[in-house]
Formats: sequence, structure tokens, C-alpha cells
Amino acid sequence: MPVSSYIAESMDKASFIRKMFEQGSQLRAKFGAENVFDFSIGNPDLDPPAEFFTAARELIAEAGKGMHGYMPNAGFPDVREAVALSVSAQQAVEVNGTHTVMTCGAAGGMNIIFKTILNPGDQVIVPKPCFVEYGFYIKNHGGEMVMVDTREDFSLDISNIRKAMNERTRAVLITSPNNPTGRVYPEEQIQELGKLLLEAGKKRTVYLVSDEPYRELVYDGVTVPSIFKHCPASIITTSYSKTLSIPGERIGYVAVNPSTPGAEKLLGGLILSNRILGFVNAPALMQRIVARLTGATVDIEAYRRRRDLFLDGLTSAGYNVPKPEGAFYIFGKSPIPDDLAFVNHLLKYNVLVVPGSGFAGPGYFRIAYCVSENTIIRSIPAFKKALETL
Amino acid sequence: MPVSSYIAESMDKASFIRKMFEQGSQLRAKFGAENVFDFSIGNPDLDPPAEFFTAARELIAEAGKGMHGYMPNAGFPDVREAVALSVSAQQAVEVNGTHTVMTCGAAGGMNIIFKTILNPGDQVIVPKPCFVEYGFYIKNHGGEMVMVDTREDFSLDISNIRKAMNERTRAVLITSPNNPTGRVYPEEQIQELGKLLLEAGKKRTVYLVSDEPYRELVYDGVTVPSIFKHCPASIITTSYSKTLSIPGERIGYVAVNPSTPGAEKLLGGLILSNRILGFVNAPALMQRIVARLTGATVDIEAYRRRRDLFLDGLTSAGYNVPKPEGAFYIFGKSPIPDDLAFVNHLLKYNVLVVPGSGFAGPGYFRIAYCVSENTIIRSIPAFKKALETL
Repeated sequence: MPVSSYIAESMDKASFIRKMFEQGSQLRAKFGAENVFDFSIGNPDLDPPAEFFTAARELIAEAGKGMHGYMPNAGFPDVREAVALSVSAQQAVEVNGTHTVMTCGAAGGMNIIFKTILNPGDQVIVPKPCFVEYGFYIKNHGGEMVMVDTREDFSLDISNIRKAMNERTRAVLITSPNNPTGRVYPEEQIQELGKLLLEAGKKRTVYLVSDEPYRELVYDGVTVPSIFKHCPASIITTSYSKTLSIPGERIGYVAVNPSTPGAEKLLGGLILSNRILGFVNAPALMQRIVARLTGATVDIEAYRRRRDLFLDGLTSAGYNVPKPEGAFYIFGKSPIPDDLAFVNHLLKYNVLVVPGSGFAGPGYFRIAYCVSENTIIRSIPAFKKALETL
Repeated sequence: MPVSSYIAESMDKASFIRKMFEQGSQLRAKFGAENVFDFSIGNPDLDPPAEFFTAARELIAEAGKGMHGYMPNAGFPDVREAVALSVSAQQAVEVNGTHTVMTCGAAGGMNIIFKTILNPGDQVIVPKPCFVEYGFYIKNHGGEMVMVDTREDFSLDISNIRKAMNERTRAVLITSPNNPTGRVYPEEQIQELGKLLLEAGKKRTVYLVSDEPYRELVYDGVTVPSIFKHCPASIITTSYSKTLSIPGERIGYVAVNPSTPGAEKLLGGLILSNRILGFVNAPALMQRIVARLTGATVDIEAYRRRRDLFLDGLTSAGYNVPKPEGAFYIFGKSPIPDDLAFVNHLLKYNVLVVPGSGFAGPGYFRIAYCVSENTIIRSIPAFKKALETL
């Protein structure tokens, strides 16, 4: 066996999504890309904002000695300060540069968090549906993912989290706005969760880990509540992938709530983990670029228009689609209980979506609306036909 | 405890190097940066070659849709093809794009390699002295580092490697030109190693993993032998950190020898590991830049001049310093057996070097000559005085 047993097993499991990928390519080859409606991948299609290119141009022109060299494993000190200002504003809790670590995206951030806090056998509670890749990030470092149900509206069910807790619980991991549901967890739930973790953490700290790449992608004036205000032992991680449309560049950060017990030691551990996991540091040029772009985002209104177009179209076509408050996903109810069968049925109409089962949310399907309005409009008759022919 | 036991323990161990860092800062604050001779860090001071900035400017200007977006976890297909051409030339073995995976530097490369190939308890043999960070990369994924002695000239001692092998051996990890010694392992040793691994791998593949960031930094016409030609089951990993002076950008790759048994499955595993460890993919813009820069390097002749200046100066001052064939390190014999005591003694003369013990090579000290010729020249009297006052 050229690979380890675990990797061999994981490759077999991962083959379902690979198969979907291949089906998409086959459909495009057969019918032409313009006749295939691919809503399977959350790869932002909007261009990065103009400020991104301006900053990149300026920084390449300025490039002096050391611009692309090593810096401390936590990142450039001035970049960390800039990030801290933005975190302070978002979280309504003052943090400084030393509370932040620049990372290779949020996926890198979560890996250094779990490497740092987990002892072998520790558990991390994750409300589902969720991004199932979390399971790998936890297991990589000897931990175990424990999924719990959310409410029917996909908001947190604190009593389920309470029931899942035991002496091995080390963290609760949430993402809001949520992938795949687009749900934003309301402030009172975060508050209640904070109280629960504080109580449970009296013997050993239980962290709230908040994965926040969609924090700024919210609609209709919804605000995402502060984590730091309500949960003393908390760590946020995020990336600029979605807000700046640069997921290929792998740039993000981790920020630790200054109220976390032993925050300084935790930060030292995160910095060590960033080094020893082989990230070493977040990419240098991108660190400098994002430090200049506080507040810049892609055109969020464009995503809002697409969401509304899709919701209207699918509802008129007869689908049951709850209204997402953020991110760029719609998590629709599968018209038949077997979401895998429904997703395969949609393929006959050249429509690609991801089954809810891929997010531990069976009975649903996920649409990523990082596509043009025209594609959305043209796809509605296909969705409609699929429903009629079930 | 805010962090895991393993991280807490590793933080304590890592504190020695942190202490050296702090001492350096204190010396600079006290005596002025120009009066402190810091040879402790291998952070290239030469500017990236002009081609780097040209490519960066052009790519930023061209930036169309998707330029900074997701791509396959292995990297952009055209970038992988460009890398394959360069690997084919260096290794004198034909590889194509599918044999390569773009990574976040060589440290990222090694982590995905060990994640992919190691079962719990597997051993990796590493000739010492070596970059001790390897121990973390191996242990991160359940493996165990087994160090073996090299010969007196720091070249490989194949019989020591043979003696260390057992049924748990999964790989041998080498780096040539070596950090810290600058030694280039001769072709007949690589050939002998290849035969040994082929024989040992009859039941289960035993890989040669070759970490090659210094391959192009060699002097006096020395060439680094091909790994792929002599070792059928082999994986190379490298970064552009040293050849292009961009260590902060975290860009490199892994290439698998097409003769490796189960090469396709191994590559699938590496790509999965790149994804699940949170690297996701190598930074997009840097991938495109390095693809345009095949063959470009920093001014290697500048490093050669520094090496010779240092060797002449230290030899005249009475030191025993073997001549390195590559990389930008000198591994000198400590004038007293206790290298830690000697390094502390040098500090009195404002000279910072790393004790050989930090590389599992006690009785030596490492100089990184990524500094100006002027600094080297001005440091020689300090080295001399330190020797006289021992």
C-alpha cells in the first residue's frame, strides 16, 4: 500500500464528490458549458475589489529588501495590528496585535487551533448541517468530531449541545453565517452558549471556536453577533477568501479573546503550531495587501440580488427554500426524502447541486449562487422540469 | 492548561532558540545593529531576481476572473506542467504535471508527504546533523524520527542507515546540499542508498524523501545527483524560498518519481493531504509567478564570494572550518567540545551563531552567511578575539 491506511480509507470516502466533479466535466463536454447549470462549488466568481489590485500593484512596486522574506511565525507585527483594529470593531471587544496570528486561510487557522488545544481523544462538538471537512481538521490532531442537531430553522439547539458535553469536550465549533444553510445564529443563542461553556469550563477550559469567513456576507441589515462579548474562552478564525474573492491565495487569521484563561500561552501554542505544521507563516505579500484593505469587500449587493432571484424562481417553481441570511448558499428541502436520488435526478436536467448528506444534512440540497444572474434565470425552468418529472 | 500537553512540552523545548532571538535583540538595542554580527538565521538577504518583480507586475495587471480563485488542490494544471519540465531536466527522469503537487513551501510539502505515507508508529531515518524541525513534521502524523550518524565529512554512512532499518521503517529523509553542513551527498552514495531501499522495500515500500531547497545553491561546479535516477521509490520536495529569496511567500512543490510503486495512489493521497491539513492549495499568484521563472535564481556568485571570505577569515583566525559545497551555511568545529558554552562565549563579542547541538551535531557551530560582505569582514576580528580569550 503506497499510502497509510487512514489516507487510503479517506480517499475511498472522498470519491463521491470527485465523482460529482467528473459528472460536471462530462456534462460540460457533452452539452457545452453554457448549457450546464453548476451550483456545486462555493468558488466566488465576483472579481476582487479594485482596492485589491491597487494595493498589489503598489506593494510590488515598493518591494524593498525583506518584503518577501521570513517574518515572525505569527505574521508581520504591523499587519497583526491592522487586523486587531478590525477585530476590535467587529467583536466590540478590544484586542491588540498580540492576540492575532496570520494564517494560511481559515482552514489553516482551524488546523493550528486544533493542533494547539486537543489532547488525544478530546471531543469537538459541531452543530449540523456543517462543512464536513471539519472532521478531518479535528481528527488530524487526535480529536473526535461529535455532531449535534440544530433546530428546524437551523439555528443552535443549546440543549442538544449541553447533552453532548462530557469531560472529554474541549471545544464547540460553529460557523455563522452557516455553510450550507446561510443561517446567522441569533445573539441570545451565542449568549446562552457562552454561559454553558463558562460553566462547563470550570475544571478545564472549553473553547468556542468560531469559523467566520462569511461574517461580512449578510443581507437585509442582519448583523452577526459578537463572539468575544459573550464567550470568554473563544477563538475566531476567518479568511479573506469570500469577502475579497481570493480563496486561492490562502490568507486569513486567528484571533484569541483576551478574556480566554491563559490567552498568552494559547497564543504561543498557536504560533508554534503554525510553524511546526509547515505553514511557517501566512503568505507575505498577501498579508501586506489585506492589511491595507480593512473594510473592503466584493459587491455584496450582487450576491443579495442573486439570492432573491433564486428564491423567487425556486419558490414559483414549487420548491421549499428557506431564506438564508448570509453566505452565498441556499439550503433547499429535497422534494423527495432521498436527497442523493434527487441530486441525481437534477443531473438529467444539467443541474449540479450538492446533496445535503454531504453536509450531514440529509433531505436537503445545497445551491452555491456564485454564478451570474443569467445562469440563475436560465436554470429555473430546468429546476421546474425536474420537479414535474419526479 | 490552555494548550495540549504535547504543545506545552514543545513550547518549553523551543524556548532555547527563542532565548537566542531575544539575546540578539538585546545586543542590537544595546550596541546598535551595525555592531552586532548576527549569523543565526537562514533568511536570504539578497533581493529576489528582477524577473520575479516583472512576472508579479504582469500577472497583477492581467488579473482576470479566477486568477486568485480556487483551483484543483494540486495546483493550476499549467503550473504543474511547467514545474514538471524543470524537474525532468534536474532529475534526468521524465515526469509530467500529474506527478507534481504545488505546496506551501517545502515544510508544507514534507507535512503532506508524512501525513500520506505514515501509519502510526512508522519510523523515518534522518542522517544527522539535520534541521531538527523534521522531528515535528514526522511526529505530527504519528511517526517517529530515528537519527543516524553521518561520516566524519558529513556525507552519508549507508551502513548506519542499514543498521537502523527495521520493519517499521517507512522512509529515509535527506537534504543535500545539507543544512547545516553544506555537504552535497555524492552520486555513488545516492546509488547505494537506492539499492538498499529497493531491497528493504520488497515487503512494503520504503521511500527516499529528498528535501531540496538548496539544490541550485552550489559552488565550484559541484552538481547535486539525481534522486529519481537511483531511487525508484522517491519523493522530492522543494521550495523557491532560497533560489528566489522569497521564503515569506511559502511556495514550493512535491514531485513523485514515476517509478514509485503505486505512484498514482500516492499522488492522490498527497493531494488529499494538501486539502485536509488546511493548506487547501499553494498560494495562487505565487504559483503563476514561479511557473514563469524556470531557471531564474538569485545571484549565487554573491553567496560564493561570502563563503570564501568567511572561510579565509576564519581559517586565518585559527578556526577549523570545512568547506561547504552548497547552501549558505558554514558548519565550523567548536574550539572547545561544549558548543553551547562556545556560542555563549561568542555572544560577548556580539557574534550570534547557532550551536551544532541545535542540529543534533554537538561540537560544532552553524554560521548562516546571508549577510553583507562588509559584515563578514568586520566580524572576523571578533571571532579572532573570542578564540584568543577562550
